[in-house]
Amino acid sequence: DQDPTYNATRDDQSAITSALERLFENDPIRDPLLISRSDRPCNAETPPELLTRDFVTPNNLFFVRNHLPVPEIDVEEYTLEIDAPWVKNPITLTLKDLQRKFEHHDVMTTLQCAGNRRKEMHDAKPVKGLQWTQGAISNAIWTGVLLKDVIEQSIGPVPKEWADKIKHVQFHGAEGYGASIPSHKALDPRGDCLLTFAMNGSPLPKDHGWPVRALVPGHVAARSVKWVTKITLAEDESESHWQQRDYKGFGPSKTLEESDYSTAVSIQEMPVQSCVTVPQPNETVPVVEGRATGIKGFAWSGGGRGIVRVDVSVDGGKTWTDAKLTRPGQEAGKEWAWTHWEASVPVTKEGPVEIVCKAVDTSYNEQPRDMESVYNVRGVLVSAWHR
Amino acid sequence: DQDPTYNATRDDQSAITSALERLFENDPIRDPLLISRSDRPCNAETPPELLTRDFVTPNNLFFVRNHLPVPEIDVEEYTLEIDAPWVKNPITLTLKDLQRKFEHHDVMTTLQCAGNRRKEMHDAKPVKGLQWTQGAISNAIWTGVLLKDVIEQSIGPVPKEWADKIKHVQFHGAEGYGASIPSHKALDPRGDCLLTFAMNGSPLPKDHGWPVRALVPGHVAARSVKWVTKITLAEDESESHWQQRDYKGFGPSKTLEESDYSTAVSIQEMPVQSCVTVPQPNETVPVVEGRATGIKGFAWSGGGRGIVRVDVSVDGGKTWTDAKLTRPGQEAGKEWAWTHWEASVPVTKEGPVEIVCKAVDTSYNEQPRDMESVYNVRGVLVSAWHR
Ligand SMILES: [Mo]
Ligand SMILES: [Mo]
Repeated sequence: DQDPTYNATRDDQSAITSALERLFENDPIRDPLLISRSDRPCNAETPPELLTRDFVTPNNLFFVRNHLPVPEIDVEEYTLEIDAPWVKNPITLTLKDLQRKFEHHDVMTTLQCAGNRRKEMHDAKPVKGLQWTQGAISNAIWTGVLLKDVIEQSIGPVPKEWADKIKHVQFHGAEGYGASIPSHKALDPRGDCLLTFAMNGSPLPKDHGWPVRALVPGHVAARSVKWVTKITLAEDESESHWQQRDYKGFGPSKTLEESDYSTAVSIQEMPVQSCVTVPQPNETVPVVEGRATGIKGFAWSGGGRGIVRVDVSVDGGKTWTDAKLTRPGQEAGKEWAWTHWEASVPVTKEGPVEIVCKAVDTSYNEQPRDMESVYNVRGVLVSAWHR
Repeated sequence: DQDPTYNATRDDQSAITSALERLFENDPIRDPLLISRSDRPCNAETPPELLTRDFVTPNNLFFVRNHLPVPEIDVEEYTLEIDAPWVKNPITLTLKDLQRKFEHHDVMTTLQCAGNRRKEMHDAKPVKGLQWTQGAISNAIWTGVLLKDVIEQSIGPVPKEWADKIKHVQFHGAEGYGASIPSHKALDPRGDCLLTFAMNGSPLPKDHGWPVRALVPGHVAARSVKWVTKITLAEDESESHWQQRDYKGFGPSKTLEESDYSTAVSIQEMPVQSCVTVPQPNETVPVVEGRATGIKGFAWSGGGRGIVRVDVSVDGGKTWTDAKLTRPGQEAGKEWAWTHWEASVPVTKEGPVEIVCKAVDTSYNEQPRDMESVYNVRGVLVSAWHR
């Protein structure tokens, strides 16, 4: 994490700058409405009020979280390799193979970055990482083929002697990123893991993994690997930096030095989350018949858990009002998409109030109250009540 | 919930009392170590220090939660009926059929009552119901046959025209209790739902459902129906009082009158939980080299989610120390059993301290901090930090 230009002379610096520019020359132009958190690589979030304008986020407004430059891929040359320890010759599929040989599925899924809302945690106590507010989350309808179908119809089902050993499915991205998910999720007939090539009815945008992105519903977005070129069934998790030394949670009193990545558990499913999107700080909402109206937000939980309730308070959490929910209407246990909510809350005093929300998911998990008790040095899993 | 003896004369009262006694005459003798919360029906919890003495709770110390009298069942006469809307003649199985026709499975599973720790919530603000402290939870190894096998091998798989309609599997108990679970859980090859006839290697005790108890790992204990005599695949949830008008969660500001059972979601999977079992209030633990030692407890989460961390504090939650975990060693996503933990925490002052614990599960859900924010009129789902 050291600044690579730290020891550079001015000439070296300019050489590095132009080398960097060349690395990123394949990056697409982004919608200026996106709020940039870093340019190279591109990390940009959806503006808060646009998170709840549409239930399905338009492609141009879907948050972008790139770890590396966008790779240049010639679709005619693109191949996806499927491999496993018992397979002698890995199977190679073209985009056309994927699109023609397997049944197509549409799955509406919300993706959220592990670091969403990091800025709030940073404001409570400094943490490293991109300073996301609440917009590193978006919802889309993804079109693709079932990962399970592709694996089972190309290399066949896992042989008996390997069944107890194969615990993970690893994804390799063309740009160098990598991650893995538990094999039981990848192969679950109800898991809805896809290899996608379209998003909201259009071909996958470059920023979102064109031509093929793995989609892992209910899991942290970091496992939905973009520009995927190789899939490996394996005994172990991905050896990538991001699987091994990132995207893990630690206790609130642990320093960076005390945080042991080798024993911490990789983030896969995410905890219950919610945010107020309207109003934003210092904005006003109409008060009608003693109630503050038009308060809006989103709620989401990982693992296909839906939202059973969103509680909204304007007195710092002393009293709570149920919000009206717009749920995705997905099958129980497969509620991959977020819930939108709107509330009108009784107010007893004039002037500014602090709006707080917290959501409850179908396993009746609740959001924790304070940043301090979920604090971790990487600033991930920020799920405290949103204020 | 009105007292049935409220309007009774003294004579009526004594007649009612002896009628009640006759109703409960089949109830077994219980271990005097269990802490009784009601006698008729029997509700009794495991003493706190015995929760963490053994990883598998001995049968005689397993908490008892009966809604009605223990039914008298002649095993030679016992039958289990399997029914579904497309089935003309329901299938009837004897205990011997169950034991001989299907493959046996052992599954270690923790069961927790929805009302566990209700007394703590009641102490913060009064709620109705049995005043459980922390012992309405226990862990056992259950032996039985897969519910999925029994259904599919007796009435066959769900026909195509019913696949989208069958959403629930209902259990009917011989004593009059009833409940249901989502069909996707009942039929999930990884769901481990059993029809059990043994517990920790012994025949199921009378109090725990002899001869057959449904076991629904990862769900609230109220769905693991005892003395089960009928199983119905259905479009709707069980119509029983306990499915429809109990075991649901409500917002913290809702009164009993405002709590709408018709729109609330039934508790199935439970949220992440943990408790300190040693020391108990006013007990002491040894301080060795500046650390309070031998602090013990349990942690558990629903839905097969395991425990990734237990944080322990002796300064009210300002600083936290990771506990050492004894996990069940079950497969990822099938961690049905609890985790035991032990901690030694640095102490800087002499005298009494308040020990607090909170657990984090594999979906990185956290326990909420305060009773007030999870308060609900039924006093269920008590998962605030344990102090
Ligand atoms: Mo991320
Ligand atoms: Mo219960």
